[in-house]
Amino acid sequence: MNSSKFLVPTNGKFRLKDHSPAFTDGYKNKAHAETQLSKNIDRLSNLQERLYAQNTYGVLIILQAMDTAGKDGVIEHVMSGVNPQGVDVFSFKAPTTYELDHDFMWRSLRVLPERGKMGIFNRSYYEEVIVTKVHPEILEAERIPTIAKGAHLWNERYEDINNIERYLVRNGIIVLKFFLHLSRAEQKGRLLERIETPEKNYKMSVADITERAHWKAYMTAYEEMLRNTSTEWAPWHVIPADHKWFTRISVSDTIIQKLESLKLTFPTLDKQGIRNLRTAKRILEKD
Amino acid sequence: MNSSKFLVPTNGKFRLKDHSPAFTDGYKNKAHAETQLSKNIDRLSNLQERLYAQNTYGVLIILQAMDTAGKDGVIEHVMSGVNPQGVDVFSFKAPTTYELDHDFMWRSLRVLPERGKMGIFNRSYYEEVIVTKVHPEILEAERIPTIAKGAHLWNERYEDINNIERYLVRNGIIVLKFFLHLSRAEQKGRLLERIETPEKNYKMSVADITERAHWKAYMTAYEEMLRNTSTEWAPWHVIPADHKWFTRISVSDTIIQKLESLKLTFPTLDKQGIRNLRTAKRILEKD
Repeated sequence: MNSSKFLVPTNGKFRLKDHSPAFTDGYKNKAHAETQLSKNIDRLSNLQERLYAQNTYGVLIILQAMDTAGKDGVIEHVMSGVNPQGVDVFSFKAPTTYELDHDFMWRSLRVLPERGKMGIFNRSYYEEVIVTKVHPEILEAERIPTIAKGAHLWNERYEDINNIERYLVRNGIIVLKFFLHLSRAEQKGRLLERIETPEKNYKMSVADITERAHWKAYMTAYEEMLRNTSTEWAPWHVIPADHKWFTRISVSDTIIQKLESLKLTFPTLDKQGIRNLRTAKRILEKD
Repeated sequence: MNSSKFLVPTNGKFRLKDHSPAFTDGYKNKAHAETQLSKNIDRLSNLQERLYAQNTYGVLIILQAMDTAGKDGVIEHVMSGVNPQGVDVFSFKAPTTYELDHDFMWRSLRVLPERGKMGIFNRSYYEEVIVTKVHPEILEAERIPTIAKGAHLWNERYEDINNIERYLVRNGIIVLKFFLHLSRAEQKGRLLERIETPEKNYKMSVADITERAHWKAYMTAYEEMLRNTSTEWAPWHVIPADHKWFTRISVSDTIIQKLESLKLTFPTLDKQGIRNLRTAKRILEKD
C-alpha cells in the first residue's frame, strides 16, 4: 500500500476523528495481511543490511500510542527477521530521579542510533507533550525554571523537538514517527482480555485503567502533538490500530518505502581497493 | 569588572581586530589580579553550593581557543576552589570512530550537566564549525549524507547549535561561552617556552605548529562562529588572553555575575517540613 495515506499534513490541520482506527485498506483479514508481512520482513532485513554496509544513515523509529495499541507487537512482529546487531530498542518508562535532573530530551538523545543502525523508541521524548500535558503536576518534578513554565511551554517544546529533529535529519538520522491510533472500545476489549487471560495478567497494571479515564485529554494532547510536530523532515504517520495485523503491515510498509527512497547501496571499491583485494587473494593462495 | 564588555553582540556584527588580546582593564599586574581572583574563587564556591542546593539550574561552560591560549589554566585556577562533586570537566579530542558514527553534537549532549552541577567543556561541538571548517576534508569522515553538504552546511550548523542551546536554556541549562582571544605573537612565545622548558615538553605536539600555519583561516572561522552563534540566550564572551592572569580574573568575574543574576537561594521548608524536622529532633534527643 502507499504509506503516504497515513501521513499527517505539515500545515497544522489534522483531526483524529477523520481517521478510522478500524481502517484496513482493502486487506480482508489477518491471513491476507500476514502473507504480505512475511515478504516485508525479508525486504526489511535486506534493506537493513544495506543500511549497515553504506554506513551513512541511521534510522530512528518512534512509536507512540495509548496502552494496548500494539507498540510491543509491532516491534516483535515487524523487526524479528532483522539482524539484531542492526537494531536497538529503547523503552522509555517514567523518568528516574537522575533523568529528571537533566533536560527532558537528554535520555533519548544519548541513545540515538548511529549510522548504519535502526533505533526503535518504544515511547519517547514525545511523552513530554503527552502524559506531562495531561498531568501537568509532572512538570514540578522536572524542576525546570519557573520562568520557563506557562502556556508558552508546550509550544516551545514542539518548536524545540522540531528543531532538534531537523538537526538529526541534516546529520543523516532518518526520523520515522508512528502514532498507533486505537479506539476506546477496542482498548476496553484488550484490557478485559488481559484481565481474563492468566498469561496476559502480567501486562496489566491499575494505571492502565486510571489513565483510560483521561482518554479525552489524551486524544486532545495527541492531536495537538500531531498538528504541531508533523514536519517536512519528520512527518507523523497515524496508523489504524484496531486490527493488530493491519498495524503491523502498514508500519512495515512505511519503513520499507522510506528506506527504499534512500537508494541504499553496498559500497563499491575504487581501483586501488580492487587491487588491494587481488593482492590479498594472492597472499592467501600462497599461504 | 563588568563582564558585559566582553559580550559579542547578537546582531551579527563583530570583528576580532577591534578587541585587543592584551587588554587588562585597569589591572596593573598579576599580583593585583590574583588578590581579586582568590576572592572570586571563594564567591564561586559559595554560589556553586547554592546552585546544588536549589537544584533548578545546570551550568554549561564552554571554552574555545587556539592552542596555548590558557583553557587548561582557566579550569585549574578558576575552578580549583569549588567542590569537585559539583563540577565535571570534559575535554573533547579528535572524535573516535564510534563518535563519528553519530550526529556531531551527540558526544557533547550526552555529557551535559544535570541540574545543580557545572559542566565544563574544554573544546566542544563548536570545533565542528572551526577545525572542520579550516580542514573540510574532516567532513568526509563524518559520513553525513551528500545532500547535507555544500555552502549551506555551516549556516545550518550555526542554526542547529543556536536552536539546541535555546532548548537547553529553556530547560534550565545556563550556557556560558568563552573564546580566549590570543595574539599570534603571544602564541609563538608560549610554544617556544614549551619547547625550551623540559617540564613543559609533554604539552607540545607537532600539530600545534602545523595548525599555527592556518592562523588566518582559524581567525576567520572563529569570527564567523562568534557572529553567528552569539545569541540572547547564549552569548559569546571574547576574553583577552595574552595575559593569563587577566584571562582567569575575567572568566571568573563573568561566571560569578551570571550565577548571581539567577538569585540562587537555599531551599526553605514549608510548615510541614519544619514540623518534620522538629519531630526528627525529638526522636534523636530520646535516642
